[in-house]
Amino acid sequence: MTRADTTHFRCTIEAGIARIRLDRPERKNPLTFDSYAELRDWFRALPYADDVHAVVLLPNGGNFSSGGDVHDIIGPLTKMPMKELLAFTRMTGDLVKAMLHCGKPIIAAIDGVCAGAGAILAMASDLRIAGPDARVAFLFNRVGLAGCDMGACAMLPRIVGQGRAAELLYLGRSMGAEEGERWGFFNALASADSLERDALALAERIVAGPTFANSMTKTMLVQEWSMSLDQAIEAEAQAQAICMQGRDFHRAYEAFAAKRKPVFEGD
Amino acid sequence: MTRADTTHFRCTIEAGIARIRLDRPERKNPLTFDSYAELRDWFRALPYADDVHAVVLLPNGGNFSSGGDVHDIIGPLTKMPMKELLAFTRMTGDLVKAMLHCGKPIIAAIDGVCAGAGAILAMASDLRIAGPDARVAFLFNRVGLAGCDMGACAMLPRIVGQGRAAELLYLGRSMGAEEGERWGFFNALASADSLERDALALAERIVAGPTFANSMTKTMLVQEWSMSLDQAIEAEAQAQAICMQGRDFHRAYEAFAAKRKPVFEGD
Amino acid sequence: MTRADTTHFRCTIEAGIARIRLDRPERKNPLTFDSYAELRDWFRALPYADDVHAVVLLPNGGNFSSGGDVHDIIGPLTKMPMKELLAFTRMTGDLVKAMLHCGKPIIAAIDGVCAGAGAILAMASDLRIAGPDARVAFLFNRVGLAGCDMGACAMLPRIVGQGRAAELLYLGRSMGAEEGERWGFFNALASADSLERDALALAERIVAGPTFANSMTKTMLVQEWSMSLDQAIEAEAQAQAICMQGRDFHRAYEAFAAKRKPVFEGD
Repeated sequence: MTRADTTHFRCTIEAGIARIRLDRPERKNPLTFDSYAELRDWFRALPYADDVHAVVLLPNGGNFSSGGDVHDIIGPLTKMPMKELLAFTRMTGDLVKAMLHCGKPIIAAIDGVCAGAGAILAMASDLRIAGPDARVAFLFNRVGLAGCDMGACAMLPRIVGQGRAAELLYLGRSMGAEEGERWGFFNALASADSLERDALALAERIVAGPTFANSMTKTMLVQEWSMSLDQAIEAEAQAQAICMQGRDFHRAYEAFAAKRKPVFEGD
Repeated sequence: MTRADTTHFRCTIEAGIARIRLDRPERKNPLTFDSYAELRDWFRALPYADDVHAVVLLPNGGNFSSGGDVHDIIGPLTKMPMKELLAFTRMTGDLVKAMLHCGKPIIAAIDGVCAGAGAILAMASDLRIAGPDARVAFLFNRVGLAGCDMGACAMLPRIVGQGRAAELLYLGRSMGAEEGERWGFFNALASADSLERDALALAERIVAGPTFANSMTKTMLVQEWSMSLDQAIEAEAQAQAICMQGRDFHRAYEAFAAKRKPVFEGD
Repeated sequence: MTRADTTHFRCTIEAGIARIRLDRPERKNPLTFDSYAELRDWFRALPYADDVHAVVLLPNGGNFSSGGDVHDIIGPLTKMPMKELLAFTRMTGDLVKAMLHCGKPIIAAIDGVCAGAGAILAMASDLRIAGPDARVAFLFNRVGLAGCDMGACAMLPRIVGQGRAAELLYLGRSMGAEEGERWGFFNALASADSLERDALALAERIVAGPTFANSMTKTMLVQEWSMSLDQAIEAEAQAQAICMQGRDFHRAYEAFAAKRKPVFEGD
């Protein structure tokens, strides 16, 4: 069973969907050393859990996340020796790796501030929906750092294209909801009222599908990232052959033959 | 000479352009074990053929293809042991490999249903034109399977972006003509009347170009897929040097010097 | 100090920004053997220079560049043996490598003709702004050559998507300003009057940022091109840890604590 009694972020689990909100809305939900570590561990446990088949990251108090907290994180980092700095950047990278390898589709519902590490969590999700006030900023260079944070130079170009990614990373400027939809960063736009409902509806639709097969889709999207085309095609031949021995494939065929809607069970 | 006397799909060859239509329009042109294998063999012979310099995949009876036939393919697959399943998924992957390595640009003219393996054939083409009723669906998860089919998790993200590809693969939903053009899946939109004409005009324009050089372009688009940038630049230095010893390059220069239009001959 | 006394292209350096224009506007600024070689050497010296933190490529007489000169380059190429051809294609590729590895963001301001190798220089820049008459054409196949020139089959698909890149490379047709912006090739559109001003303003904004960190962003965008996601995330953990020991990161934190705007010094 996936733990919902988290300390440094909010989590509820219902009908196979985990809802996560970063905490401290009065400061726009910054990340802290503690929340980074707890999120990493929570996502690392997810591949073994069978009670969660999709994760929805939600805003809190109108904002998604302001990223690494200036007082709790940036201040201490300026005083650390290299060994500790690298331990920190690896921990943040490990959170992204844990999200990529968790085996469950992640949907980010983004409104208000979505900055720095908050923008990375959005980018590392599978699907993204924007509320009207979403402002996504990879603002690392605004604080004297490089745009290469937690995988941004690898992932952002594949989502919005190399030229647009370079602009966002060199300038640290905000990308709004409509621009983000036009560029392929956001899959859909929602009103402030419907944002959470739309994200949950999308999660419900995914969870009603073949969850074992969905998990394979997620694995292969990561796995094939730097394969040659021929390697990717062989990898998919193996992965899909596995899914063809899954019971959900049989259920779908039987339902089709009987002219009814398939009910998937995730095995 | 390329064979046009095909059994399981329709093929005509004229003026260097092969026109291919999947068959059985009354069932929206599903793929079968036989048509998969014959298409694979047909595309595998193409690199050695000098009578075909572009391929156009056309709809039949208003639809492109409904993908793997439910009765002829999905039913039997549910009864196969792993060895046979893997032989099947490798055969379908081999068709995509054969299309990628055939050395001739492929243009898909898509209208109506373009689903499952049909959507893969469209994706594995070089250029795509949409008729007004084109509905492209990577619907694998609707039948209990994963989105990783025949290279989809590698190719679709490079065409429409990682976020949009994930949405199409997790949901199995249809992408229409205008959405597909906006996302870069379709190169152009056509009316129902003009679709085939537009696709053939595009093929004619390509065939009137330097076909040996076009073949090198196709090879390198596949070859450089997972190279580093420095490797890709060296690979192109070699490939382009080869083309500079081609006669079409000389013909173009001579035509330019004589202020006339070059006539390419493909060597 | 970076040399501004160039012979085969125009160069001025001011306030950390190098402005480069190809020469011979009466012929739309073609590239020659000499300007290729001098540009390559100029960009190769740039990583060691501390007086330039961004480069702006500008049009000259209303055009960006017509690419390799027909008389000075294409004619002689038709007479060369393979060893010399490969030396030439490697030299042109070396220019792109030098631009990718120069450590300074490059902004191309494009108006009028931007063709062949000129289009490659635009593509190999980090950011691109279009004037109203910009016409970008990867026209290699028009002169009997392949689209795989100086890295085009690797880079163009990552900027505009695989399908749109294939179209531009197979047809050699022009892409205009608005189409290019819609496809992500251009970051912004400008009027004829504002084009140079907008490009310089962008360069000034980047140069006012943390230039050592910007240089790391550029390095990693190239470095991670063909890494796996897990490799990229580890590479970024190391690269960002280096930047966290940079003084600009400390300056940003101190400025934030003192509620003033940070002044970056590039170390």
